[in-house]
Amino acid sequence: MSSSHSPGHQTWGGRFSEGPDARVAAFTESVSFDARLAAHDIRGSIAHARMLSAVGVLEKTEFEQIAAGLTAIGTRIDAGDFPWDPALEDVHMNIEARLTEDIGALGKKLHTGRSRNDQVATDIRLWLRDAIDVLAMEVDRLRAALIEVAEREADTIMPGFTHMQVAQPVTFGHHMLAWQAMLTRDAERLGEVRKRVNRLPLGAAALAGTTFPIDRQMVADELGFDSIIDNSLDAVSDRDFAIEFVSAASLIMTHLSRASEELVLWMSPAFGFVDLPDRYCTGSSIMPQKKNPDVAEIVRGKTARVNGHLVALLTLMKGQPLAYNRDNQEDKEPIFDTVDTLINCVALYADMMPHVTVHSDACHAAARKGFSTATDLADYLVRAGVAFRDAHEIVGKSVQHAIAAGCDLSDLDLATLKGFSGVIENDVYDVLTLEGSVAARNHIGGTAPTQVRAAAQRARAAMTSQD
Amino acid sequence: MSSSHSPGHQTWGGRFSEGPDARVAAFTESVSFDARLAAHDIRGSIAHARMLSAVGVLEKTEFEQIAAGLTAIGTRIDAGDFPWDPALEDVHMNIEARLTEDIGALGKKLHTGRSRNDQVATDIRLWLRDAIDVLAMEVDRLRAALIEVAEREADTIMPGFTHMQVAQPVTFGHHMLAWQAMLTRDAERLGEVRKRVNRLPLGAAALAGTTFPIDRQMVADELGFDSIIDNSLDAVSDRDFAIEFVSAASLIMTHLSRASEELVLWMSPAFGFVDLPDRYCTGSSIMPQKKNPDVAEIVRGKTARVNGHLVALLTLMKGQPLAYNRDNQEDKEPIFDTVDTLINCVALYADMMPHVTVHSDACHAAARKGFSTATDLADYLVRAGVAFRDAHEIVGKSVQHAIAAGCDLSDLDLATLKGFSGVIENDVYDVLTLEGSVAARNHIGGTAPTQVRAAAQRARAAMTSQD
Amino acid sequence: MSSSHSPGHQTWGGRFSEGPDARVAAFTESVSFDARLAAHDIRGSIAHARMLSAVGVLEKTEFEQIAAGLTAIGTRIDAGDFPWDPALEDVHMNIEARLTEDIGALGKKLHTGRSRNDQVATDIRLWLRDAIDVLAMEVDRLRAALIEVAEREADTIMPGFTHMQVAQPVTFGHHMLAWQAMLTRDAERLGEVRKRVNRLPLGAAALAGTTFPIDRQMVADELGFDSIIDNSLDAVSDRDFAIEFVSAASLIMTHLSRASEELVLWMSPAFGFVDLPDRYCTGSSIMPQKKNPDVAEIVRGKTARVNGHLVALLTLMKGQPLAYNRDNQEDKEPIFDTVDTLINCVALYADMMPHVTVHSDACHAAARKGFSTATDLADYLVRAGVAFRDAHEIVGKSVQHAIAAGCDLSDLDLATLKGFSGVIENDVYDVLTLEGSVAARNHIGGTAPTQVRAAAQRARAAMTSQD
Amino acid sequence: MSSSHSPGHQTWGGRFSEGPDARVAAFTESVSFDARLAAHDIRGSIAHARMLSAVGVLEKTEFEQIAAGLTAIGTRIDAGDFPWDPALEDVHMNIEARLTEDIGALGKKLHTGRSRNDQVATDIRLWLRDAIDVLAMEVDRLRAALIEVAEREADTIMPGFTHMQVAQPVTFGHHMLAWQAMLTRDAERLGEVRKRVNRLPLGAAALAGTTFPIDRQMVADELGFDSIIDNSLDAVSDRDFAIEFVSAASLIMTHLSRASEELVLWMSPAFGFVDLPDRYCTGSSIMPQKKNPDVAEIVRGKTARVNGHLVALLTLMKGQPLAYNRDNQEDKEPIFDTVDTLINCVALYADMMPHVTVHSDACHAAARKGFSTATDLADYLVRAGVAFRDAHEIVGKSVQHAIAAGCDLSDLDLATLKGFSGVIENDVYDVLTLEGSVAARNHIGGTAPTQVRAAAQRARAAMTSQD
Repeated sequence: MSSSHSPGHQTWGGRFSEGPDARVAAFTESVSFDARLAAHDIRGSIAHARMLSAVGVLEKTEFEQIAAGLTAIGTRIDAGDFPWDPALEDVHMNIEARLTEDIGALGKKLHTGRSRNDQVATDIRLWLRDAIDVLAMEVDRLRAALIEVAEREADTIMPGFTHMQVAQPVTFGHHMLAWQAMLTRDAERLGEVRKRVNRLPLGAAALAGTTFPIDRQMVADELGFDSIIDNSLDAVSDRDFAIEFVSAASLIMTHLSRASEELVLWMSPAFGFVDLPDRYCTGSSIMPQKKNPDVAEIVRGKTARVNGHLVALLTLMKGQPLAYNRDNQEDKEPIFDTVDTLINCVALYADMMPHVTVHSDACHAAARKGFSTATDLADYLVRAGVAFRDAHEIVGKSVQHAIAAGCDLSDLDLATLKGFSGVIENDVYDVLTLEGSVAARNHIGGTAPTQVRAAAQRARAAMTSQD
Repeated sequence: MSSSHSPGHQTWGGRFSEGPDARVAAFTESVSFDARLAAHDIRGSIAHARMLSAVGVLEKTEFEQIAAGLTAIGTRIDAGDFPWDPALEDVHMNIEARLTEDIGALGKKLHTGRSRNDQVATDIRLWLRDAIDVLAMEVDRLRAALIEVAEREADTIMPGFTHMQVAQPVTFGHHMLAWQAMLTRDAERLGEVRKRVNRLPLGAAALAGTTFPIDRQMVADELGFDSIIDNSLDAVSDRDFAIEFVSAASLIMTHLSRASEELVLWMSPAFGFVDLPDRYCTGSSIMPQKKNPDVAEIVRGKTARVNGHLVALLTLMKGQPLAYNRDNQEDKEPIFDTVDTLINCVALYADMMPHVTVHSDACHAAARKGFSTATDLADYLVRAGVAFRDAHEIVGKSVQHAIAAGCDLSDLDLATLKGFSGVIENDVYDVLTLEGSVAARNHIGGTAPTQVRAAAQRARAAMTSQD
Repeated sequence: MSSSHSPGHQTWGGRFSEGPDARVAAFTESVSFDARLAAHDIRGSIAHARMLSAVGVLEKTEFEQIAAGLTAIGTRIDAGDFPWDPALEDVHMNIEARLTEDIGALGKKLHTGRSRNDQVATDIRLWLRDAIDVLAMEVDRLRAALIEVAEREADTIMPGFTHMQVAQPVTFGHHMLAWQAMLTRDAERLGEVRKRVNRLPLGAAALAGTTFPIDRQMVADELGFDSIIDNSLDAVSDRDFAIEFVSAASLIMTHLSRASEELVLWMSPAFGFVDLPDRYCTGSSIMPQKKNPDVAEIVRGKTARVNGHLVALLTLMKGQPLAYNRDNQEDKEPIFDTVDTLINCVALYADMMPHVTVHSDACHAAARKGFSTATDLADYLVRAGVAFRDAHEIVGKSVQHAIAAGCDLSDLDLATLKGFSGVIENDVYDVLTLEGSVAARNHIGGTAPTQVRAAAQRARAAMTSQD
Repeated sequence: MSSSHSPGHQTWGGRFSEGPDARVAAFTESVSFDARLAAHDIRGSIAHARMLSAVGVLEKTEFEQIAAGLTAIGTRIDAGDFPWDPALEDVHMNIEARLTEDIGALGKKLHTGRSRNDQVATDIRLWLRDAIDVLAMEVDRLRAALIEVAEREADTIMPGFTHMQVAQPVTFGHHMLAWQAMLTRDAERLGEVRKRVNRLPLGAAALAGTTFPIDRQMVADELGFDSIIDNSLDAVSDRDFAIEFVSAASLIMTHLSRASEELVLWMSPAFGFVDLPDRYCTGSSIMPQKKNPDVAEIVRGKTARVNGHLVALLTLMKGQPLAYNRDNQEDKEPIFDTVDTLINCVALYADMMPHVTVHSDACHAAARKGFSTATDLADYLVRAGVAFRDAHEIVGKSVQHAIAAGCDLSDLDLATLKGFSGVIENDVYDVLTLEGSVAARNHIGGTAPTQVRAAAQRARAAMTSQD
């Protein structure tokens, strides 16, 4: 049987006749992971104390001593020289207890007019806001990398696939801009999530507000919050911001997982479209010839992890009565791990993409398989007056013939082609080339190289204007 | 062994030597659920055809015949008088085939310059945009209902809970506004999702754009899209909008699940805080006395369903290579069911909430249990010069004493209270009342009735200004 | 405002002063989906009534009238000639109400000693047990199909991939048996789930048992249940069986999703390993040449749906207090849809797999790319006395050389190879052939054709003995 | 830009011209979490080496040196005195590299005939098998605790709830046995999962088996595996065992979440059914009176975490082609965290439950609210010849009357009751008592105290026989 701590060790121990069981203490402590919030906890406490002095709850000198004490603690923490004590439960109590040890009884005044419920909500919002800013920068760095590759490969023809069957030729640059387009939406979403993260819960105290004459706007201004949360129950119970952030993160990972799937396929000898420098690959312990696209695979795998965190957070909050339940302590690890995972994955992609070597010959050769210009032939027939559905049927028959003959459509002679439709003339061979096909898709959003270059410029301009 | 359809029955059958196996046909058809998109499919087709005529691909009279034919089909569908044929696979092919039957060979020209890939993406976005507008109205109707109840019950004192233990007194109106605050964020999110839903994919054709000189802006204008999707591969492969919408829906349901949990508890005889009219409840087949809050329970249960849809959509898209894979056919049912579920749940809550009867006596009595004004006593001590942590400890001891004595703090006489702290005077009894406690939390976000009334007015104003 | 039904229409309406609001009635009814349980509901009711007569609660003639009445209703339902009424809420009340109409007041005795809580739990368990039996048969049919293909292609060499890079040659038959091995575990799991599904809840009544002298074993025997659930609260609150079933289903779908991913890739022109008859494929509305492996894609997509159902059920049950909450009504649709999806997907695979054409030349050619016998060379060196790690390093250098030279390892002459290791002799070329490589992996579980044939026989024997 | 490691540092570096980028190395290493597998890795390696010597690939003395070297490394690791190097990627390469440093070139022979793919699969299965055994013991300890409480409280009457409305009286002991019944299924499932975890993958090598004459059965025997995995591709690609384990874990957590929900409610002053010793509770930083059931809340919250892991693993494996992809590295953290979470939560419950104080007076009083014996009255009428549906209607009217009169059914005098049905006589008051109600549910599974005691004995016997 596990022993108990002595009563009263905890700051809330007044009404308790015994301290927590040792196993309970180990189970309920959070400082092993929430110590990560220390810098933001200290910023928040200083802002709170400054406000308390402004409204007369603390003396100005009291505030100054508290602020100095907290700053000193922050310095120790940054230096890795702070003795975290799990028996003090969490980051908040560790810092407050230390403050009281360092500056004396005055430290006991810091918690006036607040509760850990609104304090931790403030800390995590501040922390997440800063994390979002870092992540958004990495997303933009990756977007810039993709735009760069897009311009470089604006003329490189590759097969566009649907159902993993060769569909129509596209350019590699066009494909890169499709990835970029996904990330543009991600950047938009991060901005919107940030807006809802960046609202001040402090002042809600435990759940109902406080009896002290607090000035919440002053605290919001000091900490850079956009606004104040307008209901104290909501302020301590809301975890929407966490779910929203992880939702946005899941979409980013979904996008990277799709890019990863493609990179893995394109590096397979069956495709051979791209290669990566050795430094972005690893080998096999048994097969000496292997060079594996591990980064792409692990990124794809980590999508699973982030989706799991999203489910965890939604499950956590489902059916919770207001105002605060201890279940919510479980919100932090998913948030932290999501941020770490995302920043790593996006940054690695931003590093790696400029170094992708595109094997344009292999891409071009692959686009010649699978009758990728069949649609161009159908469109040719339409322009010659055939209804599209009839044109589709005619080309379908031609393809069936070519498969049987073991050749491409462009290998059929004019007489044969005319056998399928009398409107076909010699100029048909122009539309059956890959180059003709891509150049002809020359409208906003189309794969024509000129459109790709214009789209790349628009994308770059959009990034600049967004800043 | 199942029999096959004859080849060529399908509109894409030219290159096929046999039609689909019957079981395959039944497995792959989608018209059993996507027929729901018919009205939007027709709107999109008319806009597409009008544009084709504007750019010279169709004659003006051809367009007019097509538009008239499509309109007539729409009328038949509305009237429930349209013979959907699963052998024609989906809503698009059913309508196109019928058009060709109705207006002759001209119908075969409609599909010029587009593909089902961009067509279905257009349809579902149009449909979802309209659904979001309906849902947003219901959310607002519920917000208005909650504001109304909040004002009515701005003075009704109830216990605020944390950890389901009595924490501090709050007012029922304050609690209603916490629910309303959640829904305000939901309304914001719906607006943001709508923005990304309402972008035009048409013109992407299969994946690469088309060789016809299309005018995408004209189509966007006619259909009310905010903008054009700027990359053809992205246009046909993107399902972010579906995931984003269901994410937002999951949060709405999470909020309703929390409200439902509370309603269920409050209706339990253990609480007895509220009652619902019989018409919002059902009974038991065996226990004659039962009156169950089924609506709240089912709404709470349906949260699970929507979370499941979110996981389904994220799982669906994970690791999909571009541009289009048939997996994506699975996006529709989750979207449709999410919309139906959400509109039903929110509308029922909006109907029901104004009819909740609040038993203010039971609420008040419950708030008197559990030493809910202990924090007020601590704050009193702070105002008398005791440091907060010391005040907390003193009150903790007083509570321990009162538990042993089997009474409330306010039942202890002054001498006893002074035994815990000499600074306590006779005015302490004012802060120990529930009314004094709530009135004292008189700042933005606090539970004081005046604050609740002011917050309700702000909330109502915000709804108006948002329109 | 929606109108209300008259009070008392419901069978539980005695204590109600008004019937349900119309929207509430539509929201809470379940007969639109649980009518599917009708046959099992009737079987359960007959067994219940027979038992009631055996213990003296009903007269024998009363039982006979009830059984005849229920049987007649079952016949009408089978014939599609039963007027389901949503106002009667669910399948149970529809049948009971009809019984009372048909046989008079005696019908009102049927519900003696039971509740809908234990009744629906009995129905769904009976239904699911039967569904599992159908599904298990389809799984076995697919296993048999894979064993058949495995034997046919036991000698067909293809590349084995890791990281989608060519790793080592394997045989196509070996690969098919890997799929079969997954399904063998699925069959085991279904058997175990069935055991826990097939337990009788009836007799728990609402939650506490009944005051009538029921004989639960008699009911269990008649309905073929393996055992009786030994706690009435657990009997009505347990939904483990649903979660467990959908968990097992998710794994089956995960396996099919992996097979589908491979089929889709193998049918891509980049691989070209297999082909499917036209009747298992569909085409494109725009691209006349397309032949898409839609079945595999949709199966892969439907994995998402089943994972979603699993999340829905877990979310549904999380944190539910005993004994029964209306949330649980939401268990049925996920179960039904999971069963339908699984049976369809597995059956289609069982139909389709025997008709897969394997292009052995393309498989063989692909296995020759990517230095797939490099490990064989390392093993050769080990057998000549080189430590494995050194052998790995030596072969790595040889591969680097061959890449630079643009040739395969087997294209290097003996002198060159000896330059990497002096122990290499002329017999090295035997181990560098694909045939030599696969034949050498000749142990239980290895890819040597003799092992594949032996494994296929064991697999077939295991299926037989399991019956 | 990040620097690269020198080529060849990795054991697979032969064919690489540069080592991994520093950020890539940090991203792809796994030793930071898989070091936890060290003891099992060493056990597996010793068994592998012993087998290699038995079949003649190693000399007997070579095996002895290797085994001694590995044992020494294991001792250092246990002592916390082993310098893990992330540059060596994972636990396997760290140990192998150290072995070669310690015993010289002979260490390079250890990896003969295996790959990290089958090695890691072996390690994690061994590790998980042992973890399952620990978890199963904790589950049994909790079951024993619940049986003990059930016997102690077999006569304690409390309200049974459905829809959180008072339904019928049950006994507290009966309720505890419902919890126990859930855990009995969990124990069954763990046993079944263990069976599929405990199968040997070693011998599959990278994916195709090995060219060395290995004896897999010998390895399986030494390591205690129940059987050998019969297909090399399946052996390295299968992660069913992880998913299955986490599925079973999710159900255990679902059960604990339900128990936790009930404990939290029962400790709320609204119920006041139970109390917990202070050492299982914590307090509030602001509200001095608070005593919160944190353990129950955190356990409920951690359910979310485990569900998240399940989704992560299912998402990870969906659509993965064979045989091995680096994504699978992501399987370990969810497994480890699930095991840690489960063992902690179950163990804490096993510790805590015997110390729950049941307030039988409060339970009894609550059961008297809500007309909990109304069903008993209906059953009384049935025994007097009224059809059940009519009895239900009659009692419903009586309840409506009693609500209006503000009293319980047992407070109505005989004349009033006879007004509802003439068959009611004076003995009706016996069935309206709580004690009469529970005692009358006297059949297998019913809540009568004698049944509860018998069920407790059966449950204890089942635990013993299962061992």
